[in-house]
Amino acid sequence: MLRSLHTAARTNLAPTIKHLLENPPTASSLLTCNGHIKSIRHSKNAGFIDLSDGSNQHSLSVVFKSPLDVLAAHQLKVGQSISVKGSWIESKGSQDYELVFNPLEPDHAISIIGDVGEDYPIQKKLSTFQHLRNFPTFRHRTATLGSMLRFRSVVESKLMDFFNSQDFTKVVPPLITSSDCEGAGEQFKVESLTNSGKGDSEENYFFGKPSYLTVSTQLHLEVLALSLNRAWTLTPCFRAEVSNTNRHLSEFWMLEAEMCYVDDVHQLTAFSEKLVKYITNELRNGAGEDLLNSRFSREDVKIIKARWDSILDKEWPTITYTEAIEIINRVMNKGRLKNRLQWGDSIQTPHEKWLAGVHFNSPVFITDYPASEKPFYMPKSKNYESERPTVACYDLILPEIGELIGGSVREHRYDELLAEMKARGMNHEDMEWYLSTRAHGSVPHGGFGLGFERLLAYLGGMENIKDVIPFPRVPQSCSC
Amino acid sequence: MLRSLHTAARTNLAPTIKHLLENPPTASSLLTCNGHIKSIRHSKNAGFIDLSDGSNQHSLSVVFKSPLDVLAAHQLKVGQSISVKGSWIESKGSQDYELVFNPLEPDHAISIIGDVGEDYPIQKKLSTFQHLRNFPTFRHRTATLGSMLRFRSVVESKLMDFFNSQDFTKVVPPLITSSDCEGAGEQFKVESLTNSGKGDSEENYFFGKPSYLTVSTQLHLEVLALSLNRAWTLTPCFRAEVSNTNRHLSEFWMLEAEMCYVDDVHQLTAFSEKLVKYITNELRNGAGEDLLNSRFSREDVKIIKARWDSILDKEWPTITYTEAIEIINRVMNKGRLKNRLQWGDSIQTPHEKWLAGVHFNSPVFITDYPASEKPFYMPKSKNYESERPTVACYDLILPEIGELIGGSVREHRYDELLAEMKARGMNHEDMEWYLSTRAHGSVPHGGFGLGFERLLAYLGGMENIKDVIPFPRVPQSCSC
Repeated sequence: MLRSLHTAARTNLAPTIKHLLENPPTASSLLTCNGHIKSIRHSKNAGFIDLSDGSNQHSLSVVFKSPLDVLAAHQLKVGQSISVKGSWIESKGSQDYELVFNPLEPDHAISIIGDVGEDYPIQKKLSTFQHLRNFPTFRHRTATLGSMLRFRSVVESKLMDFFNSQDFTKVVPPLITSSDCEGAGEQFKVESLTNSGKGDSEENYFFGKPSYLTVSTQLHLEVLALSLNRAWTLTPCFRAEVSNTNRHLSEFWMLEAEMCYVDDVHQLTAFSEKLVKYITNELRNGAGEDLLNSRFSREDVKIIKARWDSILDKEWPTITYTEAIEIINRVMNKGRLKNRLQWGDSIQTPHEKWLAGVHFNSPVFITDYPASEKPFYMPKSKNYESERPTVACYDLILPEIGELIGGSVREHRYDELLAEMKARGMNHEDMEWYLSTRAHGSVPHGGFGLGFERLLAYLGGMENIKDVIPFPRVPQSCSC
Repeated sequence: MLRSLHTAARTNLAPTIKHLLENPPTASSLLTCNGHIKSIRHSKNAGFIDLSDGSNQHSLSVVFKSPLDVLAAHQLKVGQSISVKGSWIESKGSQDYELVFNPLEPDHAISIIGDVGEDYPIQKKLSTFQHLRNFPTFRHRTATLGSMLRFRSVVESKLMDFFNSQDFTKVVPPLITSSDCEGAGEQFKVESLTNSGKGDSEENYFFGKPSYLTVSTQLHLEVLALSLNRAWTLTPCFRAEVSNTNRHLSEFWMLEAEMCYVDDVHQLTAFSEKLVKYITNELRNGAGEDLLNSRFSREDVKIIKARWDSILDKEWPTITYTEAIEIINRVMNKGRLKNRLQWGDSIQTPHEKWLAGVHFNSPVFITDYPASEKPFYMPKSKNYESERPTVACYDLILPEIGELIGGSVREHRYDELLAEMKARGMNHEDMEWYLSTRAHGSVPHGGFGLGFERLLAYLGGMENIKDVIPFPRVPQSCSC
């Protein structure tokens, strides 16, 4: 027999502060708690440490006796990670329990696990989110940005519940692709480091041909929906746009869903409304508590709650593109003739924000855009008029944000799809794989894409989507 | 008022076959069902269609009266998508209900939604998985591969439940990075299409410097765990290895977890065992039914169940690298002197498969590998011996698969980490962001990465991981 052959030791992890507060141990028991020091204060008789480990929005109160002795013996500072062994006792403060450290008790102990330097950038005083972006490795130790990551995790978890309840299968379309879904040319090229710069002959391509990062997984998702009836995904997408706004990222996460036996754009708008309302309702019913409790500003909390209410408390209006142009000209641009939109013009972000934020004061669906504004895979609208040709698509527009969702019915007939690709001068031979789905057992279907960071920013009351993703990637910025 | 201003129509989606079978409508009601024809057969008096929409493992039985009339009127073929309106009645067959179509009933109807061509590649006769890989857009319409996608979705859902129950936050580390976590140089380079080939000056980089697809999100995940205590992710990772085996992909999904207040590798092995056992137990308790029911081969089902049992029915052994070498030499290589391993040699995949599959007949942990075999961020083993220097790491080895998980404690002390980076000749200035986490409030921590497709292949009884991901990417292959 070997000396140390043994079965896996049942070593447990130290409990999180979340776990201790939700499942409190017996009062008066001796306990070790770990975390970062958020603040320290003391009076003559007692000292107080707010200890947080980031597992939830709450700090654990550590009360220490003989504060002057303790502070003389330990150079305690905000930002340090420490371990405190003390008595777990019922508290008269805002929490049910606190940890008491008494230097005279032989079993009690306090130790600094990780010290902080003088240049530790996260201090008790509030910094702007913009300033905190300079400290990518520390900014999530702040209450609000830590909470945004937990919020993101909660929303993702609720999405899983929702799609499970609707018989969807979660799938993983590829991120490396040889196709360009949107045809906009704003792609990143991918090549192995070894082959990079070797030139454009077939054997110099790792994948045998030029390959790109996906801008949308829709085409592959359609393939999978045609096998599974309903499919969804939440994956990174990549766009090499040189734009630096508070609602664009070069690498962002997109929720995409695709469903069969759909031939009416209103089936898709109804489903989209159901999805966003489900998530928001879960937040209002408790899942959003962590977020609300980590905001110091009452004004912020009020704004967030008002957003949730405005999503939940009524049915959302649906207008066509043509109606939207008419409303914008009649109300928003009243008396300003030079601003008038012509039928066929783009509805710009300021128009969208005005429609949702001012005119309707609600999320709003705009359907049936001009065919010339949209990609090749959309079929004609139900009320198609040849002088004003439109397609069966929709956008969901939110106040403050503008477009959150873009979706459409998909052309599911082989001949019509091929004709449209030819009319647009596309290389349809490279797209034979996509066309093939229309050649055998095709099904009317449709779907949409939702910019996940935009949803999180809106529901979480953040102005900039760079603050709802841990390491934002934008032009000229990829520091780690 | 505008003509068609209206609130979102409450148009419902057609029910899935999963929904109909799980929530059967009232018997004798008139119902429309949609799906693909999996098989057709008929006798003199009745015809039978197996109709599947991919929403679950079951086909719906459609019974049609006057089969010769129906088959003459409709050119029904395997692979077509059809819509059938008929009577929903209680069945004497293996399912509780069936749909009856009677051409003499005026309300009944059958229509072909999407026809199939003569060259439709998916036929009733079984094809090999390898053959099916030639048809990326159709292979998931087969029972087994459709079921593998639903299986993947179920396992991901159970992972979410597990990590939620353990106070982990699900996070999204970046996929585009300027760092190389493993230092192996097997990276893909990323550049915007517009800038590609412009040459290597700063303004020609979209991100201001060379950037790559991540090979492991660990370094970024550590940053987030140090803010949140426990963090996990399930994201694509990319390796430009020129290897084409049944267990390698150029784009694969990795489950990574990182947890604080961990300083012993056995805390990590215990947690890993708990994770894999949780998922497997859920499968054995019902979540794996869909998978088992879609296998035609009883032998397959037996193998899958045996794997689940072997995972669940005992505690897994843990041995050190040094012990593993000793066992391999003493038992596997007995009498074969030229095969003997020296201390310091790599344990190869055949050794791993032998240890787990033959010697222990169980998943097995191997801990404390030689420092020279492992990356820079691992601290010395607890029982460090300077003549045989090892680090506090582990692999989880499975029968048939070899390595499933690789993990370690992480060096959390600034000076020690910096010294190791210098000793290895690394450019530590580029890694200042990572080092910074050790400069302020550092915490002992550790974690692991699990190859998600390998887990799915093992638990799902598939030989090749190309069959558990919808669009596998391997060298010289990125067809769509």
